Amino acid sequence: MRTINIGIFGLGVVGGGVLDILQKNRQIIQARLGADLRVTRAVVRNPGKSRNLPLEDVKVSDDPDSILKDKSIDIVAELMGGVDLARQVVMTALNGGTPVVTANKALLAEHAREIFSKAYEKNVSLGIEASVAGGIPILRSLKEGLAGDNILEICGIVNGTSNYILSKMTDEGASFDSVLAEAQKLGYAEADPTFDVEGHDAAQKLAILANLAYGTTLHYPDIHKEGIRHITPMDITYARQLGYTIKLLAIGKRRENMVEARVHPTLISKSHLLASVNGVFNAVFLTGDNADATMSYGRGAGALPTGSAVVSDIMDVARNLLVGIGSKVPPLSVMEDRLTQLEVMPIREITSEYYLRFQVRDHPGVLASLTRVLGEKNISIQSMFQPSQSDNPDEPVQVILITHQAKERDVLNSLHVIAPMEFVMGETQLIRIERF
Amino acid sequence: MRTINIGIFGLGVVGGGVLDILQKNRQIIQARLGADLRVTRAVVRNPGKSRNLPLEDVKVSDDPDSILKDKSIDIVAELMGGVDLARQVVMTALNGGTPVVTANKALLAEHAREIFSKAYEKNVSLGIEASVAGGIPILRSLKEGLAGDNILEICGIVNGTSNYILSKMTDEGASFDSVLAEAQKLGYAEADPTFDVEGHDAAQKLAILANLAYGTTLHYPDIHKEGIRHITPMDITYARQLGYTIKLLAIGKRRENMVEARVHPTLISKSHLLASVNGVFNAVFLTGDNADATMSYGRGAGALPTGSAVVSDIMDVARNLLVGIGSKVPPLSVMEDRLTQLEVMPIREITSEYYLRFQVRDHPGVLASLTRVLGEKNISIQSMFQPSQSDNPDEPVQVILITHQAKERDVLNSLHVIAPMEFVMGETQLIRIERF
Repeated sequence: MRTINIGIFGLGVVGGGVLDILQKNRQIIQARLGADLRVTRAVVRNPGKSRNLPLEDVKVSDDPDSILKDKSIDIVAELMGGVDLARQVVMTALNGGTPVVTANKALLAEHAREIFSKAYEKNVSLGIEASVAGGIPILRSLKEGLAGDNILEICGIVNGTSNYILSKMTDEGASFDSVLAEAQKLGYAEADPTFDVEGHDAAQKLAILANLAYGTTLHYPDIHKEGIRHITPMDITYARQLGYTIKLLAIGKRRENMVEARVHPTLISKSHLLASVNGVFNAVFLTGDNADATMSYGRGAGALPTGSAVVSDIMDVARNLLVGIGSKVPPLSVMEDRLTQLEVMPIREITSEYYLRFQVRDHPGVLASLTRVLGEKNISIQSMFQPSQSDNPDEPVQVILITHQAKERDVLNSLHVIAPMEFVMGETQLIRIERF
Repeated sequence: MRTINIGIFGLGVVGGGVLDILQKNRQIIQARLGADLRVTRAVVRNPGKSRNLPLEDVKVSDDPDSILKDKSIDIVAELMGGVDLARQVVMTALNGGTPVVTANKALLAEHAREIFSKAYEKNVSLGIEASVAGGIPILRSLKEGLAGDNILEICGIVNGTSNYILSKMTDEGASFDSVLAEAQKLGYAEADPTFDVEGHDAAQKLAILANLAYGTTLHYPDIHKEGIRHITPMDITYARQLGYTIKLLAIGKRRENMVEARVHPTLISKSHLLASVNGVFNAVFLTGDNADATMSYGRGAGALPTGSAVVSDIMDVARNLLVGIGSKVPPLSVMEDRLTQLEVMPIREITSEYYLRFQVRDHPGVLASLTRVLGEKNISIQSMFQPSQSDNPDEPVQVILITHQAKERDVLNSLHVIAPMEFVMGETQLIRIERF
C-alpha cells in the first residue's frame, strides 16, 4: 500500500486533533483511501515542549525548511495560524508544487488572490475546508454540491463564541458582560474576545464563503464588521416579543457587480431554522437558484471537528496524488480567466428592514416627530411597539419601530437628524432584520 | 472550449429540471467547469409528446441504443426511474466505460452490489447525489466531507410527503387521512401514497446512506419499514406534552458486524434541530466520531432541487473526464477489497426507549398489572402519563408509559402478554424514541 507523507506546521489544538484522528482511524482511512497517511515531520516554535500526542514516528523541528525542503513530503498541512509565516510556508510549498491543506482563515481571507492564483498557476491542490465552520463540510458543498447553482444568498452563524453568548443571553436574560465572563471560564471565549465578539472571525469566514460562491476575491477590509457587545437583554426580549431571535450573521449576496458582505447582529424570525442553532454550534444557510434553501449545521471549532475537516482535505488531496492529477476543481470555484474582481457594497448602500429602538422622553408628540423624520426619507414603518411607560419623567421610555425595506443611508441620515432632538434621552439602537 | 455530450434517459420532472438548469446557468457552469455541457440525445417512452423544454438541439428517441451506442456521448444520465430498464441502461453504460449519473434510489438500494461493483471494476464514474434528499449534497458530505470519520449514527428525515403530513398533523391537530387528502390536492402526495407514507421511499434512501457510511451493501428487504398511517393526533398531542415531536426517521447505526437500519415514526426531543425540520423539507443528521453532530437540510424533491444535484454530479463526472481519470473516490466509499457484507440487525434485536400507549378500562390495579408484566421482562419505566379519566366506563382511558432503554424483543413479548388481559380495550401503540 502506498504511503503518503505529511508535514504538519503547528501542533496546537488542530494539529493535535489531526494526529489523533490519523492514529485512531487509520484502518478506516486506509480502507477508504487505499493508501496510508503518515505524518513524518512537524514544525513547531518549541520542539522541546512535551506534548501528549502520538509523535513516535514524527521528526519535530523548529525549522520550516525541514518540511519545505524534504522531497519525501507529499502534502503540507499548515495548521499554525497567524498570517506572515503561514503565508511564506504556503506560498513556498505551492511554488514548489507541493499540495497544501490549511485551516488558516485569516491567511485565506486577507491574501486570497495571491494564494489561490498560485494554486491555480501551479495546478496544485489546496485544501481549505477547515478554514470555515470546522466540522461542517460547507466549502465542499458550496463548490461541488451546488456547482450548477447561482448562489443567491449566504447566511452563516460562523462564530461559536458569539452564538454561545447570544444563546445564553436569550435563555437567561443575562447581560453580555456576565455571559462573556462565564464563557471565558468555560473556555468558549478567549481572554481577549475582541476577534470573536466584534465580528472579525466571522468576516474572515464570510470572505472565504463569498469568494468561493462568486468566483472573486473580495477586498477583506471592506467587509462590514459589527459585533454583539452593544446587544442588550432588553433588545433580545423585545425582539422575542415581536417574533424574532437575534443572531450574529455573516451575510453575502450578489448584487450585479457588487457583493453585499456584512457581519452584524441580525433579527431573524424565531421560527426560522437558523434561530434554532444554539450554543457554540455553527450553521451556514445557502440559497441556490435551483437547490433553493439549504443549511449545513455542526461544530465550528475544536480539535476533532476541525481535525476532521483537515483529514478530509488531506484525503482529497491524497486521492489527487494517487490518480496522478493536480487539482480537479478550480481553487476559487471558477476557471482563472473567469475570476472577477467584485467590490463589496458599502454598508450605507444596502437595503434592509430595521429594528430601531429609541430612548425618548415619555410625552405626546414624540412618536409623531420620529415618524415624520423617517417619513421624509421615505422610510415606512411596519410596526411600532412601546413596551412600557415610565413613572419617572427622568427615565427614558423605549420606542421600537420596525421599518419596511429602506436604504441604510436614509436610515442613518434620519437617525442623524433625530439624535439632537430634545426628547432623545440616549443612543438609538439599530439592528438589521433578515427575511428568508 | 471542450464540449461534454450528455444523453438523458427520461424527460420527466427531474430530466426537465436538468435541461432547464443547463440552459439557464450555462454561463456559470462554463466558468466553473471550463467546458460546455450539452444534452445531445434523450430517450423517452413517447418521443412524439410535446414538452415545454429546451429541446432544440436534442435528438429524442424511444430507443435506448440511440444513446448507448452513440460513441459521442460522454455521460449517461439515467433519470427515468423504475428498476428493470434503468438497471439495463446503467449496467450497459458502465460496462462500456461510459460514466453514469443517476437519481434512481430504488435501483441503487435494491441492486447496490451489482451496480457499485461494476463501476468499481470498470473504474468509471458513477454519480448518485440526486438519489437521496434532492437538493442536499449529503452523499458528497458523507463520502468526502466525513472521509476521516467513523459514522456513528445516521438519522434522516428523507421523505417529504410523510414529513409534510406529520408537520400538518402537529400544527393543526388534524388526522392522517384528512391531511393526506389535502397533500394529494397540493401535489405533495401521490394518488397512491403507499410508497411514501409506509416508509419504502425512506428505506431506499437509508440503504444508500448506510451503504456509503459503512462500505457495505445491505440486503434491502431486511430494512425495517414502518409508516405513519397509525399515528394519531392523540399520539402527537401526548408526545408534545411530554416534550417530544413525532418524525418519520430513517435510522442507521453500526453495531459491530451488523447495522441497525430502520424506518419508523420516532419521538425526538422537540428542542432537537430535527424537530424544527417541517413541511416537505428533508434533513440528514450524521454523527461522526470526530466531526460530532452535523446536519444537512434542504429540499428533498422537485425539478430544480433534484436537477441541481444531477447537474452537480454531471459536473463532477465531467471534471474527471477533463483531467483524464476514472473515478477518484471509490463508489461505495471504500476500496473494493475492503467492502464488507454487513447484515441488518433484526428489529426485534434492537434496544431503544419506547412510548407505549395503552387503551385500558379505568379501574384501580390496571397500572400495577401493566408495570408488573413489563417489570418481569426487565423493562423499567421512566415516566407515566394518564392524560384524562373517563366518565364513561365503556370508553377506554389512555395510559402512556415511557420506558428506559429496553430490548425490542422484550417489549414485544410483554405486549403479547398484555394484549389478551381483560382490562385492555384497544390496540397498544408503540413508538420508538431516539435520543441524541
